[in-house]
Amino acid sequence: RPSGRDAQYNRNVYFDTLPQAVRLYMLYNHWALKVLLYFFMLVNLSLAIFEDPAVYPLPIWATMLVEILCLLIFTIRLIHYAKVILRDKFWKDPKNICIIVILTLTLVDMIIYGALKAANYYGVRWSRVLRPLLLVNVTEGRQLRRAFRSIRNALPQIFYVFMLFMFSILIFSLMALKLLGKRGLTNINGTPYFTSYLEIMFDLYVLVTTANSPDVMMPAYNANFFFAVFFIVYILINTYIFMSVFLAVVYNSYKKYLKEEVRQLVRAKRHKMVRAFGVLQEQREEGGEPVVTQASWNQLVRLVQPNLSNAHRELLWSVSDDKNQGAIGKVAFVQLADLLNIEIITIKSRPHPLQSLCPSLYQSAPSKLLCQLVQHRAFVMVYDLIILVNAVFIGLDEENPMIANSEWVFLALYILEILLKLYVFEPRVFFSKHSFWNWFDTIIVISALIATIINSVMKSSSHFSSRQILDIVFILRVLRLIRVVDSIKRFRIIINTLIRIGPAILTFGQLIIVVYYIFAMVGMELFKGKVTFYEQSSTNLAKAYCGNPLLNGTDFAKLNYCKNNFNNVVSSFILLVELTVVNQWHDILYSGFATVTHISARIFFVLFHIIVVIVILNIFVAFVLEAFFVEYSVDKSDLQTSLERKIEELELAVTMEDNLVNAMETIDNDLGGSQSAKPNLPSLMFKIASKRYRTVDALLQRIFEADLDPEDFAENDDPETQGNENFANPLFSHA
Amino acid sequence: RPSGRDAQYNRNVYFDTLPQAVRLYMLYNHWALKVLLYFFMLVNLSLAIFEDPAVYPLPIWATMLVEILCLLIFTIRLIHYAKVILRDKFWKDPKNICIIVILTLTLVDMIIYGALKAANYYGVRWSRVLRPLLLVNVTEGRQLRRAFRSIRNALPQIFYVFMLFMFSILIFSLMALKLLGKRGLTNINGTPYFTSYLEIMFDLYVLVTTANSPDVMMPAYNANFFFAVFFIVYILINTYIFMSVFLAVVYNSYKKYLKEEVRQLVRAKRHKMVRAFGVLQEQREEGGEPVVTQASWNQLVRLVQPNLSNAHRELLWSVSDDKNQGAIGKVAFVQLADLLNIEIITIKSRPHPLQSLCPSLYQSAPSKLLCQLVQHRAFVMVYDLIILVNAVFIGLDEENPMIANSEWVFLALYILEILLKLYVFEPRVFFSKHSFWNWFDTIIVISALIATIINSVMKSSSHFSSRQILDIVFILRVLRLIRVVDSIKRFRIIINTLIRIGPAILTFGQLIIVVYYIFAMVGMELFKGKVTFYEQSSTNLAKAYCGNPLLNGTDFAKLNYCKNNFNNVVSSFILLVELTVVNQWHDILYSGFATVTHISARIFFVLFHIIVVIVILNIFVAFVLEAFFVEYSVDKSDLQTSLERKIEELELAVTMEDNLVNAMETIDNDLGGSQSAKPNLPSLMFKIASKRYRTVDALLQRIFEADLDPEDFAENDDPETQGNENFANPLFSHA
Repeated sequence: RPSGRDAQYNRNVYFDTLPQAVRLYMLYNHWALKVLLYFFMLVNLSLAIFEDPAVYPLPIWATMLVEILCLLIFTIRLIHYAKVILRDKFWKDPKNICIIVILTLTLVDMIIYGALKAANYYGVRWSRVLRPLLLVNVTEGRQLRRAFRSIRNALPQIFYVFMLFMFSILIFSLMALKLLGKRGLTNINGTPYFTSYLEIMFDLYVLVTTANSPDVMMPAYNANFFFAVFFIVYILINTYIFMSVFLAVVYNSYKKYLKEEVRQLVRAKRHKMVRAFGVLQEQREEGGEPVVTQASWNQLVRLVQPNLSNAHRELLWSVSDDKNQGAIGKVAFVQLADLLNIEIITIKSRPHPLQSLCPSLYQSAPSKLLCQLVQHRAFVMVYDLIILVNAVFIGLDEENPMIANSEWVFLALYILEILLKLYVFEPRVFFSKHSFWNWFDTIIVISALIATIINSVMKSSSHFSSRQILDIVFILRVLRLIRVVDSIKRFRIIINTLIRIGPAILTFGQLIIVVYYIFAMVGMELFKGKVTFYEQSSTNLAKAYCGNPLLNGTDFAKLNYCKNNFNNVVSSFILLVELTVVNQWHDILYSGFATVTHISARIFFVLFHIIVVIVILNIFVAFVLEAFFVEYSVDKSDLQTSLERKIEELELAVTMEDNLVNAMETIDNDLGGSQSAKPNLPSLMFKIASKRYRTVDALLQRIFEADLDPEDFAENDDPETQGNENFANPLFSHA
Repeated sequence: RPSGRDAQYNRNVYFDTLPQAVRLYMLYNHWALKVLLYFFMLVNLSLAIFEDPAVYPLPIWATMLVEILCLLIFTIRLIHYAKVILRDKFWKDPKNICIIVILTLTLVDMIIYGALKAANYYGVRWSRVLRPLLLVNVTEGRQLRRAFRSIRNALPQIFYVFMLFMFSILIFSLMALKLLGKRGLTNINGTPYFTSYLEIMFDLYVLVTTANSPDVMMPAYNANFFFAVFFIVYILINTYIFMSVFLAVVYNSYKKYLKEEVRQLVRAKRHKMVRAFGVLQEQREEGGEPVVTQASWNQLVRLVQPNLSNAHRELLWSVSDDKNQGAIGKVAFVQLADLLNIEIITIKSRPHPLQSLCPSLYQSAPSKLLCQLVQHRAFVMVYDLIILVNAVFIGLDEENPMIANSEWVFLALYILEILLKLYVFEPRVFFSKHSFWNWFDTIIVISALIATIINSVMKSSSHFSSRQILDIVFILRVLRLIRVVDSIKRFRIIINTLIRIGPAILTFGQLIIVVYYIFAMVGMELFKGKVTFYEQSSTNLAKAYCGNPLLNGTDFAKLNYCKNNFNNVVSSFILLVELTVVNQWHDILYSGFATVTHISARIFFVLFHIIVVIVILNIFVAFVLEAFFVEYSVDKSDLQTSLERKIEELELAVTMEDNLVNAMETIDNDLGGSQSAKPNLPSLMFKIASKRYRTVDALLQRIFEADLDPEDFAENDDPETQGNENFANPLFSHA
């Protein structure tokens, strides 16, 4: 009966209902196996570090062996998946076919490459570009697949705008050629200015990214200031208007298709819940509506979420069964998946351990005074002041012994703060899962303490301080200052929104890594070894032109860009980041890689710009915009408020006055009241962590919630939905 | 009774109801006076071209005299306004106070400056920065005031994000100082790398704009590639995340406040219409609802829009009085202002003039065949092909006599196209107000013809071709190619959206000009004459360092940026555009203006960046995004559809099949049918130009339409609305 859990996480899996099959399915979804899969995925990807061109070269047999191991793991995982779901469903699912094709091609490539190498021929490991695609196609890569699908769906729209944009560049180039080509103007290095149509097109394309502004304009502007008008009109139309239109188009289709997908997922989830309802339902009275009793409901929830506390489960039941009939109908039952997604913090208002150990001391007047002091607003302010003073001290020269010793004072003060708070607040509350800043503080302070001690020991014993440890100490010291942000409410709101969209940004991180990896692999094959970096200390004469005489006198060499190369996977990634940032990219590719290879090398860079900057970065911006608007507009979903109402009815709510849970979330400020003043509180309290989402799905669902009908059960199989090809997974599970 | 018109255009003016007062009011709103006002505003602004530092120097007395004339005009206009509206309302309106203050200060400044100059002292014309503020404060600058208000309202939100952003830069700078400051790294020019906290902060601020990427990273990256991680994290957080958050915050508050303002305007408009209803209403039957009869309604409409055709007016009446009762109630009356804002194209299906002149010839078989040919799809395709061939010919060398002569062939072909279309389509339809592309084509082709003829005449007579005329010929030739875009439907949609948001972009253009002008004035006082530009041909040795020895060897001089200076208002504006584009701005300010003046000159540039790039450009992007979303989502307002329904009911609609009006809008394609085939059409037809907006207000109103209640008359004076300080104008007129 795992359809409940599938519904909760929006998984779409088919399986038999035999006990063995269920066990296999449970095993497939075990967290350890997933971690193992991602670990080997990581190993597989990081093989690029050891393969030629390598950061740390390893013999071919070693990397090949590891790669075969990885392939084996992926194959086993896939076979496991095939055992879990129905055979025909498995073969209909494009992601499985993709994995099989990738694995086969990789194996074929390895055999060919091994044979070529054995015979001392030149070989290319072309299958390396396929590696990151595994990330997309495994069952767990749902978010990533969705991101790719929304890009694919936005492509037609982007394409038309892009064609118009290219047309505009063509027209402007033609105009520039006619206006400026025959005037005998020269570039700063003496070459003729704007005489070749292709060069003009490329220069104007680069101008859209603003990378060569104002240099590309200067020769014409120096000749006559009217020509500046040409460039200003060009920038206005192409950089400002067209780039905004790209964002608008990407944002709009992103929103549209994501909405459609989420709508389908919700329908599928509801449908699964309806099926589960069909299995569990009972007819309580003749002719009455079928219902699910509390007993079978409890059994289901225990199965789906074994580590849910009894109190929490009972709370959910009382929300579903709000008329207290001992059984719930279909509508209430279907809500279960959403209810389970609302995160509830269960708070056991335990007494402080010191109170149990020596109550007389803990309850004494000085102890109570201390508690009040620590919870006072002034305490937070004093520590904010200490942090600011600390910031000034960090800025000063740390060679000065006075400054160096002051660090111990600050460390002591920070440790004292944590100890004081632990004295006042119950430790398990202080270190609860949601107390981001408490964890942050404690980890930073303790790491700083350890690093500082190691540093001093090393210094006093061997009169030699390790640069690495000192760096860590510095970083930790500076990071400590961030805490001050949390004291100002306005800042806290912004920071919290940023933290909340963090997981979704990680999806984009994966997306970027997939694209970067592919470009890095291709780039390394095309450009490896063309440019050499010599250490600062090197006296090699080739240092002046990055080891390639073709670069002699180019901007690339003059600007000392030799380390921007494709000689290994790490420098490739850093170079791709620089290209994403766009500035100077024409120097990198034009006077760099196009010079050392061929003019067509530009195609690689322009393609990278179109894919990463125009498409992916715009989707990223669109996502951040949408997430912020959601934060600004919607506050809580209906379900959450009904859950909150229930909690309040039951008088189990953590009210604002006693602030215990607020304190939990942002424990180091607004500690107005004192929680020990109210001894007659129930021993168990709840609070909705309303602002956090368990899954990215839940966040997306909330974004588009307004358009979803809660009564829509999707009971009649919608042919449109079934036939939708955007939707890689079949929709209906066999519960 | 001008409240109807006021309501239509959302003006908020108070006036007496005496005939003389009404005449004064009508005069105040006369278009000629407005054009005169804007003309003198332009003269006043362009005085900067002739004042020191001047492009074309004029003596001080000349510019002063012109300025006094301008001030006089503005004063008269203000007095006129004071006569038109009630006295206490005049003094309560901040925009009037602003104008008075600006005029007084300007006069005081002129007197001081004149006296100082007469005594040969140094004087600064500081009041010049106030000039563009007049643009904002005149009655007609409503859109601009609204844009400024939305910026002002967004400021608190932006401020908090900005503080957090600055905090992030401070923290990263401190970390960079600690990590990199002591390593003895050097910049490319040998100066120590990252040793001064202030320099690091500035470098990292510039890195946010990506202008110094990857140069600022290279020394650290060359030392150890782990440092690249520091910069990548920095760029991710500050460039990508924070800049997106800025856009989100600006966009969100822009939308919020604009919505609120439009809501208030709509309420005020409805209120005025209710007042007008009160004046015009009659009690038709005992105890019945008060109504307005068709006679008084007609009188009102004729007064408000004298040049509305009778047919159009009757159509509007029949929409309002949809039950044909000869009188309308309040709800229908209030819609009038919105109805008048819907643009309706009245089409008189007149026969072609040739048909009246010589019907036998025009109706003959060859003539009919010609008409069919011209209206055929293939005709458009043939001309698209011609345009493409023309594009290739333009790209070729025009010195070649064959190519030069081919230009005559193309010109002849284009003229033939226009003549053929004029033969087939009724000329007044062909050149109707909405036929953008017809006008575009004709103007471009005829100008090209004239310019080409002048050019050939000059060439053959004096064997000398004027560069300017040749430039114009080239530009016109290339512009002609744009026409091809209109043939592809997908492109047409995008282009039409862009054309539609054009007027609103002009508001941003004014906004930018106000800000640029102020910065240009300040910049000229600070930096004039610090940098000198020498012509290419000059042999002056100072050319190598822009006439300022301090610049010797700096990037500014090396990159030949000497013309990027504040020596006159034109080059100031171009420099400010370059700073808006951001790239290389650190070179301009750092090794340019900070070197020749003082390090604090950076403040000017950073301030400009914050105001223009972070605030204004983001609002611009927000506007384009919103306009595109409106185009994508909403299609027509309720009123428009009811108007369309009525037009269809009356069988006066221009149906899609006969395509006459579609042809009008995009005459050169989709000319499927033939309009002369249906002789039994009514002689008058209507079409809603649904996709165009008469006023920017109407566009804004449509953007926020969904949230407005059509039944909300705002009859009870809302104290909240009245007391709203965001709203500079009082809301209720005395009709």
